[in-house]
Amino acid sequence: MSFIATPQSMHFDEPLPLQGGGSIRDYDLAYETYGQLNADRSNAVLVCHALNASHHVAGVYEGQPKSEGWWDNMIGPGKPVDTNRFFVIGVNNLGSCFGSTGPMHAHPDTGRIYGADFPVVTVEDWVDAQARLLDRLGIAQLAAVLGGSLGGMQALSWSLRHPDRMRHAVVVASAPNLNAENIAFNEVARRAIVTDPDFHGGHFYEHGVVPARGLRIARMIGHITYLSDDVMNQKFGRQLREGLDLKYSTQDVEFQIESYLRYQGEKFSSYFDANTYLLITRALDYFDPARTHGGDLTQALSVAKAGFLLVSFTTDWRFAPARSREIVKSLLENNRDVSYAEIDAPHGHDAFLLDDPRYMNVMRSYFDGIAQETTTAAKEAA
Amino acid sequence: MSFIATPQSMHFDEPLPLQGGGSIRDYDLAYETYGQLNADRSNAVLVCHALNASHHVAGVYEGQPKSEGWWDNMIGPGKPVDTNRFFVIGVNNLGSCFGSTGPMHAHPDTGRIYGADFPVVTVEDWVDAQARLLDRLGIAQLAAVLGGSLGGMQALSWSLRHPDRMRHAVVVASAPNLNAENIAFNEVARRAIVTDPDFHGGHFYEHGVVPARGLRIARMIGHITYLSDDVMNQKFGRQLREGLDLKYSTQDVEFQIESYLRYQGEKFSSYFDANTYLLITRALDYFDPARTHGGDLTQALSVAKAGFLLVSFTTDWRFAPARSREIVKSLLENNRDVSYAEIDAPHGHDAFLLDDPRYMNVMRSYFDGIAQETTTAAKEAA
Repeated sequence: MSFIATPQSMHFDEPLPLQGGGSIRDYDLAYETYGQLNADRSNAVLVCHALNASHHVAGVYEGQPKSEGWWDNMIGPGKPVDTNRFFVIGVNNLGSCFGSTGPMHAHPDTGRIYGADFPVVTVEDWVDAQARLLDRLGIAQLAAVLGGSLGGMQALSWSLRHPDRMRHAVVVASAPNLNAENIAFNEVARRAIVTDPDFHGGHFYEHGVVPARGLRIARMIGHITYLSDDVMNQKFGRQLREGLDLKYSTQDVEFQIESYLRYQGEKFSSYFDANTYLLITRALDYFDPARTHGGDLTQALSVAKAGFLLVSFTTDWRFAPARSREIVKSLLENNRDVSYAEIDAPHGHDAFLLDDPRYMNVMRSYFDGIAQETTTAAKEAA
Repeated sequence: MSFIATPQSMHFDEPLPLQGGGSIRDYDLAYETYGQLNADRSNAVLVCHALNASHHVAGVYEGQPKSEGWWDNMIGPGKPVDTNRFFVIGVNNLGSCFGSTGPMHAHPDTGRIYGADFPVVTVEDWVDAQARLLDRLGIAQLAAVLGGSLGGMQALSWSLRHPDRMRHAVVVASAPNLNAENIAFNEVARRAIVTDPDFHGGHFYEHGVVPARGLRIARMIGHITYLSDDVMNQKFGRQLREGLDLKYSTQDVEFQIESYLRYQGEKFSSYFDANTYLLITRALDYFDPARTHGGDLTQALSVAKAGFLLVSFTTDWRFAPARSREIVKSLLENNRDVSYAEIDAPHGHDAFLLDDPRYMNVMRSYFDGIAQETTTAAKEAA
C-alpha cells in the first residue's frame, strides 16, 4: 500500500515564449508533490515524464488503491528516491492530456477548443514551463532533475537551459536525439492518427468522436518498440490464443501477441488524446541539443554544470545503450562528473519502469549521495 | 539492358486442397520462364517470391525498358543464376495481386469477387500449386528451388513436401518461422488495413474504393523493418526535407525519412491489393514446419533430401542470422549437405535484393556447382 497523493494545479497568466515561435498564456500545470521541502529548500527533485505518463508519479489517490503513480516503485518513503529525504515534484507537461493545458482545452482568446491549433511544444518549452512552476513553489535550485526516456531528455535539457538551478541530472533510458528509425516509427503512428477519418483535421472534439482507429495503431507500434525481441518471445512466442488448432483467419486473433497488442491499443485509445500524441512524438523528434552547435554534442553540453547519472538497458533497442554512451562521452570530454550504469536487463525500453534490483540499487545509491550532499550543505550553511 | 520476358498463364480446373480446409478450383497461375529446358529436363530452377513481388523475376517487358524483374541482378544470362545454363521459372502465388487468381477475381460458383472470402492460403498451399504447374510444364525434378524471405520459406517447404522433386534448396534471408515481434508487426499492418473504413469488411471492390490509408500505414511499417538502423541513419539520419530551419509542425513533413516513408506508402497503396496483404502476411505468420513436430525443427526437417545453401545478412533484424542458423543446425543434425554464408552487409533485410559482391559470389558459386552436377548427370545418362 502506497501513500496518498493529491493532485494540484497552478495557473499561469503570463505568456510563455515557445521554441516554435509565438507563446502560450493562461495555462495550467497539473502537479503533485511528495515529502517535505526542507528549511533551506535544497532537497527538491523534479521528475519529468515520458509519452504516456503524467504528474502522478507516485502514491495512490484517496479511495483508489490501484491508482499507483507510474514510478511508484522508484519514488516514495524508503524507496530509491526517498520521499523521507527528498521533496519530489511531478508535473504534467503542456500539451499533455492528464490535467495540464492541452489540445482539448479552450484557447483563451477565442474560447474554441485548441485541437490541432495547440502550439507545437518542445522539450525546451516544457523545461521552461517547469522552471516557472518551481519559481512559484519558491525553489531556486533543484537537488536533481530525473526522468526516463523522453523524461531523460528533459533532465538533459534542464542541465543546458538552467545549469545553475540544479545540482544533478539523472537521465535514464534516453538519447541525445532520435535516430531515423525512431522518427520513422513516430511518423507512422502520426500518419495512422491523422489519416483516421475521425481525426477531422485535429478538430474531432467538435464532431463528438475520437480517432480511435489511429490511436490504436499508434499504440500497437509503440508497444512493439518498448519491448525487447527476447521478452516478446518469452512472454508470447508463437503461442496461440485458443487451444492448439489454427483457425486459418486473416482477421481473427490467432496468436497471443495479437491479443495483447489489440488490448493495449484499445485501452490507450479510450483515454489518450490524439493531438497530444502528435505533439509529444513531435517533441521527441525535435529534441536535439547538438543541432544548434553544428551537430557537436560535446559543444552543446559544455554549458552543463550538474553531476550526471546515466542509466541504459542492454536490450533497449528504442534508445540503445550506445545512445546513452554518446551523452556520457560528450560529458566526459567536458570534464563533468558522470556516473554511467548499463543494466543487463531483458525487458527492452520498458525496463526503466520495472524493478530490476541492480537498476534500483544504482538509483538508490546515487540519490543517497545527493541526500548526503544536501545534508552536509545544510549543516555548513547552519 | 536486360532480355525480354513474356508473362504466361496456366489455368487449373481441378480443386487444390488447402491447409486451412476446403479447396480452390478454376484458378490461374501467372508465370514466366527464362532460358531453355535441357533435353533431360534436369536444369529447371523455381524462384519463389516474397510479399511484394511476382512471377516477373528477371528481364524486362517488350517496350518497357524500366520494367526489370525484381531479381534481375541475380538471374539472367551470365548472372549468378545463369539462364544460359538454367531454365528458370518464376510463378505468382495464389492470392497475390499480380496475375494469379486472387481476392480481386470472381469466385467460379457465384461470379462474385472473392474479396475477404478468398481462402486463407499457406506456404504449403503455394508449394503444392507450384508443383502442379511443374507437372504441366513436364518437369519431374527441379535442379533447385530458390527464394528470399518468404520465398526462402517456400524453398524450405518444398524440401519437406516434395523432397524427391528437387536437388537443391537455396534459402536466403529467411527463418524457420516468425517470432513474436515479426507477427506483431504483421498484425499492426493488418489492423491498419482492416480498420480503414474503406476496407468494407474486405469487399471494398463493390464500393469502388480501396483502403489506401491502411495500405500506406502497412507499407510504412514494412519499410522500417526491411532496412537496418544503420542504413537508415546513413541514408536519412536527421536530415530535414527542406532547408535548415524547423517548421514546427506535427503534420507537415519535416525530416527526409518521413518523406521517404510517405512516398513508399503512397506508391504501394496505388497498386497493391489490401486482401492480398492480409493473406500474405498471414501465410508468413502460419509458416512453422516444426509445429506439427512438437516444435522440433530437426525432426521436421528429417524428410528433406536436398542439398542446402542458406544465406543471411548481419544487419537483417527482421530475419536475423540466428534464425538461419536454426535451420542450418537442424539440417546438420540430420546429416544433410548444408552450405551457409553470413554476409556482413549493412542493408538489413533488403540486402537479399541488392548487389553485395560477396553475396553474389556465394550464389554464383553454388549455382555453378549445381550446373556442373546437372551436366555430369546428363552425360552419365547419355
